[in-house]
Amino acid sequence: MFRNFKMVSKMVFGRGCFAQLGDILKEQRRADRSVMVFLVDDVHKNKPLKDRLPLEKDDLLIWVNVDDEPKTKYVDQLVGQVRTHMEEKTGDLPAGVIGIGGGSSMDLSKAVALMLTNPGSAADYQGWDLIQNPAVYHAAVPTLSGTGAEVSRTTVLTGPEKKLGINSDHTVFDQIVLDPELIAGAPNPQRFYTGMDCYIHCVESLEGTYLNSFSQAYGEKSMALCQDVFLADPEDADDKLMMASYCGGMSIAYSQVGICHALSYGLAFVLGLHHGIGNSVVFDYLEDYYPQGVREFRQMMERHRIDLPRNLTANLSDAQMEKMVDVALVLEPLWENALGNDWKTIITREKIRELYRKM
Amino acid sequence: MFRNFKMVSKMVFGRGCFAQLGDILKEQRRADRSVMVFLVDDVHKNKPLKDRLPLEKDDLLIWVNVDDEPKTKYVDQLVGQVRTHMEEKTGDLPAGVIGIGGGSSMDLSKAVALMLTNPGSAADYQGWDLIQNPAVYHAAVPTLSGTGAEVSRTTVLTGPEKKLGINSDHTVFDQIVLDPELIAGAPNPQRFYTGMDCYIHCVESLEGTYLNSFSQAYGEKSMALCQDVFLADPEDADDKLMMASYCGGMSIAYSQVGICHALSYGLAFVLGLHHGIGNSVVFDYLEDYYPQGVREFRQMMERHRIDLPRNLTANLSDAQMEKMVDVALVLEPLWENALGNDWKTIITREKIRELYRKM
Repeated sequence: MFRNFKMVSKMVFGRGCFAQLGDILKEQRRADRSVMVFLVDDVHKNKPLKDRLPLEKDDLLIWVNVDDEPKTKYVDQLVGQVRTHMEEKTGDLPAGVIGIGGGSSMDLSKAVALMLTNPGSAADYQGWDLIQNPAVYHAAVPTLSGTGAEVSRTTVLTGPEKKLGINSDHTVFDQIVLDPELIAGAPNPQRFYTGMDCYIHCVESLEGTYLNSFSQAYGEKSMALCQDVFLADPEDADDKLMMASYCGGMSIAYSQVGICHALSYGLAFVLGLHHGIGNSVVFDYLEDYYPQGVREFRQMMERHRIDLPRNLTANLSDAQMEKMVDVALVLEPLWENALGNDWKTIITREKIRELYRKM
Repeated sequence: MFRNFKMVSKMVFGRGCFAQLGDILKEQRRADRSVMVFLVDDVHKNKPLKDRLPLEKDDLLIWVNVDDEPKTKYVDQLVGQVRTHMEEKTGDLPAGVIGIGGGSSMDLSKAVALMLTNPGSAADYQGWDLIQNPAVYHAAVPTLSGTGAEVSRTTVLTGPEKKLGINSDHTVFDQIVLDPELIAGAPNPQRFYTGMDCYIHCVESLEGTYLNSFSQAYGEKSMALCQDVFLADPEDADDKLMMASYCGGMSIAYSQVGICHALSYGLAFVLGLHHGIGNSVVFDYLEDYYPQGVREFRQMMERHRIDLPRNLTANLSDAQMEKMVDVALVLEPLWENALGNDWKTIITREKIRELYRKM
């Protein structure tokens, strides 16, 4: 059985194409359902993008904060905020939800679009294909390039129990607007870490056991673009990084990430470390598993003068350490992809603990 | 303005995934609209694929003949055949149209799906965005890999007046089933010519003036896969050729073909030469315009022992020659992509005639 992969319905790519967003949304505004909800990363609150949002009468603009990784509780709160606004206005659903920002902001907008048409809390839907009703129209405008949240069928959320996505065909965006000019302003080291998220993702999927030719083609292209961007600094680096993220996201159709992501999920859950930086922190200790990838990653770090945070786990309690190991081990497909069917004979709790202690 | 590109809704890729077609179609069969129409290239009439078609009660199987390139008249005839069948059965529209074969068969199935919900003749819709009503659900199963008809928003048709596609967002397939096992049986030189259609397409778009980073990424990957398939004969050549076709099709979003396609359209219109072979015939005379591409193309020809047809235009009347030049020159965007804004000062009728006379 091969996954029948749901793709984003419409895509526009080009320098300055953000200016077309208003016209694109106009096609979705109907006389009886015209309100758009914009969820925008609050780093743009005092930036020029703010004045370019195609807001119309009754539209709702919410600045979202993603200093912490998206929580199901935050999704529920945002949905409440949208519902209150809509009750005051038309009493109906909004015509669409537009997410503008990085992976976290896009994930929040996917989750809000889904939860407007599905009852209960976002935490009820963490898992695979639990969503029953199609979401309202939802579109994304990435302003950071990472692992292709813009094309994925998941929205990664941290719930009370677990960090796990809402995986569903209904999660996939109806529209993405890929304007390389919008990622130009991303500060280092954030740009570097989200880029490495993409690069590491490629290393893990290309060296994994799950790969087929579809995902290989996308993974190889994504990796080549990352190498160009971070080792050669081409003039059109923003365009290339945006395409790297897109291709990396597409490559996940028939591949899986590996050891770095599994360990990084543990760090995120226990220490609250952001996904992008978490992957970089972990990857630097994985030369036994991904020797060539780690070597190249270090060249990129040196070139971009990145100092990784160290000694993050020094003060963890035993209970915290064991929780971290638990979270990492739960992600069985990642281990199997990296190490094959016999992964349980290769990786032990002690080996994982050892790796975590170095970080 | 950048094109807002409509993408195929769902895609499955993998060796043997054709076996999933029945389940995929089941999701589209509703109690009140359950009939599927299969348009299958008649080269499969006596092949094993015939017995693997997931036909159910009342489904209609039509063997299509694509010895000639698809004509609008043929589309109208097929639509009539489907309508007659449906009147005898449910009196309603079919649940879907499934095209199985190469680019021509896929194009026929796109056109039939569109014309079941739009009045008049297919010839009325040759052009851009003339289609008013969405098509019925339509899916494609390629059994040849060429230029990515499986992902394009056009269906190339020859009408009474012109060879021109029905270009519309509604043309795009709802589902594609990419099973590399199905292209294994394609005979040489047909496999070579359809592969070269993809390769030449990449040369023209990558060296064109219209390119942006989206199309460049796809074009480069498609070309690298073609080079691997036709210069190194890897074990997984079928998988790679299928991905080359897919990537080549995606690359057209923000690029355009060039001189070879313009001239080949003329050959097709006047001599009825098939698209794939037509491109190879023309490309061999374009070393002034695409020196590196033509060099590599000749290496591929040699390796695969291809003898191109020659002296095709020796017996043409002056009127036929002028018609051929007319057809080629009508395709202005192709010339502009290849030669820039000033293309009219670079290419003349006499130069085109000279090229045609060599073929």
